[in-house]
Amino acid sequence: MVDGIKVVQCLPNFSEGRDLNKIENIVNVFRRRDGVKLIDYNNDRDLNRTMVIIMGEPQRVKDVVIEAMGVAIENIDMRIHKGQHPRIGAVDVVPFVPIKNISMLEVVQLSREFAKEVGEKYNVPIYLYERSAARPERENLADIRKGQYEGMMEKIKRPEWKPDFGPSELNITAGATAVGARMPLIAFNINLNTKDEFIAKAISQNIRYSGGGLRFCKAIGVKNCNKGLFTISINMTDYNKTSLYSVFEMVKCEVKRFGVSIINSEIVGLVPTEALIDSALYYLQLDNFSSDQILENIIME
Amino acid sequence: MVDGIKVVQCLPNFSEGRDLNKIENIVNVFRRRDGVKLIDYNNDRDLNRTMVIIMGEPQRVKDVVIEAMGVAIENIDMRIHKGQHPRIGAVDVVPFVPIKNISMLEVVQLSREFAKEVGEKYNVPIYLYERSAARPERENLADIRKGQYEGMMEKIKRPEWKPDFGPSELNITAGATAVGARMPLIAFNINLNTKDEFIAKAISQNIRYSGGGLRFCKAIGVKNCNKGLFTISINMTDYNKTSLYSVFEMVKCEVKRFGVSIINSEIVGLVPTEALIDSALYYLQLDNFSSDQILENIIME
Repeated sequence: MVDGIKVVQCLPNFSEGRDLNKIENIVNVFRRRDGVKLIDYNNDRDLNRTMVIIMGEPQRVKDVVIEAMGVAIENIDMRIHKGQHPRIGAVDVVPFVPIKNISMLEVVQLSREFAKEVGEKYNVPIYLYERSAARPERENLADIRKGQYEGMMEKIKRPEWKPDFGPSELNITAGATAVGARMPLIAFNINLNTKDEFIAKAISQNIRYSGGGLRFCKAIGVKNCNKGLFTISINMTDYNKTSLYSVFEMVKCEVKRFGVSIINSEIVGLVPTEALIDSALYYLQLDNFSSDQILENIIME
Repeated sequence: MVDGIKVVQCLPNFSEGRDLNKIENIVNVFRRRDGVKLIDYNNDRDLNRTMVIIMGEPQRVKDVVIEAMGVAIENIDMRIHKGQHPRIGAVDVVPFVPIKNISMLEVVQLSREFAKEVGEKYNVPIYLYERSAARPERENLADIRKGQYEGMMEKIKRPEWKPDFGPSELNITAGATAVGARMPLIAFNINLNTKDEFIAKAISQNIRYSGGGLRFCKAIGVKNCNKGLFTISINMTDYNKTSLYSVFEMVKCEVKRFGVSIINSEIVGLVPTEALIDSALYYLQLDNFSSDQILENIIME
């Protein structure tokens, strides 16, 4: 039975992927907390970065990430940080994601409260991005991160890059942080029966937004280690607007052009129920369907 | 967030569909009960029958149906009952259905406890059917109901029709009751763009179990009142074994044979999430998928 508890996900990214003691200091903050579950975390040496995934009640999630941010700032010195992933601070980015019984608007509000609080508490400039952005030119995280930590020193002085919260100058050791609400991402791999990189790249190019394809679809062609076959590795950035089935059917059309075919597909990590149900409704041509008809959605009083 | 509460559905059928006072007496038992939710009920004059749908915690559901059975027996006299639907008693049939965090085996156990208790308490002979059946020849409800209330007087005396619980003779006013655990049914309509009854009947015949079709599929061709077009009206009796997509794809194949097509489909009433997800996985060719990957399935500690 579904209960009415509000649930958000948060995926803070920390600029430390090598020093296991420091990583442990940060990750440990998320362990054994009431109302917050540590879903996963992974650190990458090359990127020198650790991403944590937690879920739970909005206020508790906010509080525990505030605490972890304090630990990260104590442990990370951006002046000596090197890594392959673009970053602007010790806590590089903090995305909040609505999961259950909570609207995007409420999560935007939560992210702004978080941003205000940590900006003041830790004296770190904060940029609101994506759904939380206060200006359209800050919606895209890549634009905020352009120039990275090293470039921020100057960039922050330009009036158009005045932070949304916190001080108007860079925190030398902690850098700056991007905070925002966004839709859950779906990592969707479509495996092809081809070893031809050209085909995988061409299909990826055609289906993704930046190549003229679907609005909320990012895609690259990558070699599948096992058999040397290629995979279209897709990030669905808003499954409510660009559906799994649209992407799948578009790839189905594209493979025909090259005389290859789809072996299967995979979801990497988590997927919201409604993203799958949406595709079931499409393929079964189910009309007049309401989510009230889903047995598990009936709420006990 | 999903919690771990066990939930069953129960759909007791009462042999009264005309006297609104009596119906209200029965239905009222299900209102405002802790841990039990009255989902729906409908009474039919021609069938002279009322079906109630409730959901909730297993023991509470059992208790409230026991109470309602008492009220029904006080209000219904089978000696004067007439109606188009086959029936053997005042409480004709009591199906229990697993919904969440509960196995079929547990629901079978629950249905047997219920059967034993009401058989003794109300002095009504009880037949266990479907998953709860103690003998294979009692699995099919239609076999138990054959001869109906009127025929039961003699039928019950045959050794092979000795009741599973309660007295070995018919309760004159209350008749007998069938009790069992079963899978959730899915009522699935596929609407065709044809006014030709022959086509609808032929397709229904081909897809249903009794006609050589799919094992857990019942189907009939019915005229859609609005436009005179025909609908394949399907009951999926075990969606884990016969999938929605199998039925849909089989109808897709059959319509080609007759040069007609599918307009759309509809789910009537409730459907379990997993029945829809199963079809999404099929059509998206999603392999290696685990229900742990569904965001809403993550259980907080």
